[in-house]
Amino acid sequence: MHEILIEQGILSKNDEIAGKNREWLRARGVFSINMVSSPGSGKTSIIEKTAGLVNGLLKLAVIEGDMETDLDAERIRRHGIPAKQITTGRACHLDAHQVHHVLPWVFEQGGIRLLIIENVGNMVCPAEYDLGEEMKVAVMSVTEGDDKPLKYPALFSASEALIINKTDLLPYTDFNMERARKNALRINPDLRVFETSCTKGGGLAEWCGFLVSSAGRAAKARAK
Amino acid sequence: MHEILIEQGILSKNDEIAGKNREWLRARGVFSINMVSSPGSGKTSIIEKTAGLVNGLLKLAVIEGDMETDLDAERIRRHGIPAKQITTGRACHLDAHQVHHVLPWVFEQGGIRLLIIENVGNMVCPAEYDLGEEMKVAVMSVTEGDDKPLKYPALFSASEALIINKTDLLPYTDFNMERARKNALRINPDLRVFETSCTKGGGLAEWCGFLVSSAGRAAKARAK
Repeated sequence: MHEILIEQGILSKNDEIAGKNREWLRARGVFSINMVSSPGSGKTSIIEKTAGLVNGLLKLAVIEGDMETDLDAERIRRHGIPAKQITTGRACHLDAHQVHHVLPWVFEQGGIRLLIIENVGNMVCPAEYDLGEEMKVAVMSVTEGDDKPLKYPALFSASEALIINKTDLLPYTDFNMERARKNALRINPDLRVFETSCTKGGGLAEWCGFLVSSAGRAAKARAK
Repeated sequence: MHEILIEQGILSKNDEIAGKNREWLRARGVFSINMVSSPGSGKTSIIEKTAGLVNGLLKLAVIEGDMETDLDAERIRRHGIPAKQITTGRACHLDAHQVHHVLPWVFEQGGIRLLIIENVGNMVCPAEYDLGEEMKVAVMSVTEGDDKPLKYPALFSASEALIINKTDLLPYTDFNMERARKNALRINPDLRVFETSCTKGGGLAEWCGFLVSSAGRAAKARAK
């Protein structure tokens, strides 16, 4: 019981800072997403591909969350995209406070319109922590099994989009795409589902189209 | 600061119960392991294969940890192995207290010699929670990338064995086995590494040989 009360306190403090982050980003015309998945689902690869497709339309910056190392930020920087690494140490998720500290860096990059936050690889805790993003995007790969939405419902119900990645490996797994979609939509009927392959390239244009149009809609709504 | 102190309190309470679990299991000649990985690395498949190979030698019971559903326990039961599901709800890891409640069930199965605990799919938090097991076993699949040990060092340093699974998918990924082993051994030089494929069968005999001999050594040490 104590544990639950303390946790609620931590979460409500987090939500307060997340609200400030969201205001800050909106005021500067930055559309932000928070990508969540298990380790190794291909989040960084998807961001690399997304950068190639959308950076001409929307100037992009990336925040990378990992417990240790800045391997992921280095990967992104190789594409000429500004990337900031947050190492969380023992923590299994980013929190709004950590993102808050990085916002001045986003501003310094000049003219950023899209901020992609790659969370620590974990399907559980990141689902509960609002960072101030406009939308959460869940990522899973076909090698993880089509029952994941049922086993980790919190993430799927908190997300607006689901990317099912590594479709190139479908022939070598018993992953059933129809069942995966059905499981995901059972948890969240409004989820937009994209099937992608970063090695073969499928589905990335659809995903990026959705991302750019979501950013556009948000900008229009703010302008009103 | 408060958060850290509270966490230490929770962990020390957990460790106390874990110690009791360990004593209880040892006194009844049960060797126990705690399997930890991201969602979809193939823990349940490895347990299914392990059951087939070791159940004649060591009578086996399985505790399945998941946030929701008892899909995994059902999979294990189909092999005639007693399996108990613990659903953790919002919690991203099993704790010693949850396992403590299930110990009477282990006893009721009669003559259990090996208890496999499959933790919630998460590479982060389960690494910190002792459940009373004799050893932690980390699992990763080749589709997750060979940099995982560097990014999630806590799990790899807390484990005695590492199973690198889904080696049948090696030809379709850029996973470098030598680099993965080097990264894992850099974090923990004593780690025993096994390369397995549950679909093609490779490496499972070596893993099960290690498991059975570890249980045997523990039994001998207790008899002294």
